[in-house]
Amino acid sequence: MQTKPLTRDSAIEKLPSPYLLFLGDTTETTYAKTAFGLRDWAPDRCIGEWSTSAATVTTGLPRLTPKEARLRGACGMVIGVANVGGAIATGWIPFLLEALESGLDLVSGMHRRLGDVPQLAAAAASCGRRLIDVRVPPPNIPIATGRKRGGKRLLTVGTDCALGKKYTALALARAFTARGVDADFRATGQTGILIAGSGMPMDAVISDFEAGAAEMLSPDAPPAHWDVIEGQGSLFHPAYAGVSLGLLHGSQPDVIVVCHEAGREHVAGYPDYALPSLEEAIDLNLYMGRRTNAGIRCAGVSVNTSGLGEGEAREWLAHASARLKLAVADPVRGGEEFEKLVDACLA
Amino acid sequence: MQTKPLTRDSAIEKLPSPYLLFLGDTTETTYAKTAFGLRDWAPDRCIGEWSTSAATVTTGLPRLTPKEARLRGACGMVIGVANVGGAIATGWIPFLLEALESGLDLVSGMHRRLGDVPQLAAAAASCGRRLIDVRVPPPNIPIATGRKRGGKRLLTVGTDCALGKKYTALALARAFTARGVDADFRATGQTGILIAGSGMPMDAVISDFEAGAAEMLSPDAPPAHWDVIEGQGSLFHPAYAGVSLGLLHGSQPDVIVVCHEAGREHVAGYPDYALPSLEEAIDLNLYMGRRTNAGIRCAGVSVNTSGLGEGEAREWLAHASARLKLAVADPVRGGEEFEKLVDACLA
Repeated sequence: MQTKPLTRDSAIEKLPSPYLLFLGDTTETTYAKTAFGLRDWAPDRCIGEWSTSAATVTTGLPRLTPKEARLRGACGMVIGVANVGGAIATGWIPFLLEALESGLDLVSGMHRRLGDVPQLAAAAASCGRRLIDVRVPPPNIPIATGRKRGGKRLLTVGTDCALGKKYTALALARAFTARGVDADFRATGQTGILIAGSGMPMDAVISDFEAGAAEMLSPDAPPAHWDVIEGQGSLFHPAYAGVSLGLLHGSQPDVIVVCHEAGREHVAGYPDYALPSLEEAIDLNLYMGRRTNAGIRCAGVSVNTSGLGEGEAREWLAHASARLKLAVADPVRGGEEFEKLVDACLA
Repeated sequence: MQTKPLTRDSAIEKLPSPYLLFLGDTTETTYAKTAFGLRDWAPDRCIGEWSTSAATVTTGLPRLTPKEARLRGACGMVIGVANVGGAIATGWIPFLLEALESGLDLVSGMHRRLGDVPQLAAAAASCGRRLIDVRVPPPNIPIATGRKRGGKRLLTVGTDCALGKKYTALALARAFTARGVDADFRATGQTGILIAGSGMPMDAVISDFEAGAAEMLSPDAPPAHWDVIEGQGSLFHPAYAGVSLGLLHGSQPDVIVVCHEAGREHVAGYPDYALPSLEEAIDLNLYMGRRTNAGIRCAGVSVNTSGLGEGEAREWLAHASARLKLAVADPVRGGEEFEKLVDACLA
């Protein structure tokens, strides 16, 4: 799925891969999630890793200098770690400069823009290399037309943020491809964009253009083709629901999969906001989605059961499936439930 | 209402009023809507008008040069006309320069930014004057907290764009004030912002911050105070629904008034998209609004009946009111229906 040429979205910039993954001076794996995500979901885009001598975290990929990576075909170095506050650490700068001087573009999903660091801006200009911030949307996003597009679309939606919408979309796209279905994962957040090699940072788009950005992300395609679109936020989120609605309207999904975390009862960070029931989340997403695609249906529910033991988890999934009369699976655990969810999506 | 010091929203920039209204070389009143809106809704912010010799349109305000306006207390010159494509006409530049040199800031709601015109940028810098684009949101808009704020809030919502949400909010705020109720009109679009002297260009805010921008626009207030907030777009609009939802969530309205145009059957510019019924628009806005304010209610419906004769219009309003069991009025026609709508809002 990841190596297919991106013929249908020429309006959206293609990132310079294969990548060398830069791990900075990271000693905690939790800060290197982006690098691990790239290793797991885009192995053919990842040539090796590099870090300062202080780093203890490793992805297990070969350790290469930028020069060595360039010789093996790398086109960009991705900052694969997060820092507190999204800053670019001063200690990283010599390493980033070395990458530019070795012929690699720099790719970042951090808050601070690469071009705002004067040394990087100067070096990129003199080396003729690019500084790419995947959080920055492309120019000239159009206002949504609402016109129905060719091809099939699946959107992962959620009861909240950060509970598995990206993972679910990646797992479904991979499963579709494994079954011989022509499918693309369409990324809407920074890690997803790095994995896919292109995409649309939906939360950074100007509000008026939100649905238009979603239309741009999943353009016209052949009738049997599936775009599997990474969802963002939740229609029930007090801060981000507008992002979710623009993405839902512009994606015009034929199928939604509702994502949830077992045991989560409140919006993360908003203790006064109870999560909706799965029934309510399904109903509202179908109601709103019907506005731009009358044929929308819910294929099932994807549940993050990482807080439960294996037995408990399987029980949770079985109960929810019986109650909702829908396929309910944890894509991380996989198994028969997940195959049923894939069946339901493609039905 | 317009002259009250803006004590509660110090985070949002206050525009330099009183204004001198610049009419350019306009010969058609339809292009001078902003100037007419300012004359009608913010007379105490408007000192006079100015234009090139080619202009035939007038607001009826005294014709003053920038120097004369400055002597009478003007602080800014507002470009009160729209051009095809939102450009700043070359022929206007000498007039804009004269305003800057006379000690007036320039205020624009046009698409093209004032600072992108090199002559204006240079003159503003050398004269120590400001170039203010009201379409540009303030910096440092926070992520929405969802926290309930003090004071009462009313939001005008709509079945579509451009059918009277601004006018309705202005008319209600004026009526509240006339009844001795402490009320502020809160502007969310360019003309409204010029009228109010401050506000938030909701459609230009980055999606992630949309609800936060609405929270910033109507901050904590005393219990008896009303913010009457100008709505944007529609939850049913295939391009702009995300803007409307962020505004609804962040505004946390106690009361909504649904705005509609009699006879409009499709989303303007989207012939494939039928408008929702008034019932459906009321229900969905209440359902979504309940997420951040459980006490939300619909006080009634504001209908733009400009396409109907007086008799037809009164009949339309009476029929809709009987069917919905709600106050239904056209604020432009006013009358008993409108007083009932005001009653219902304050009930």
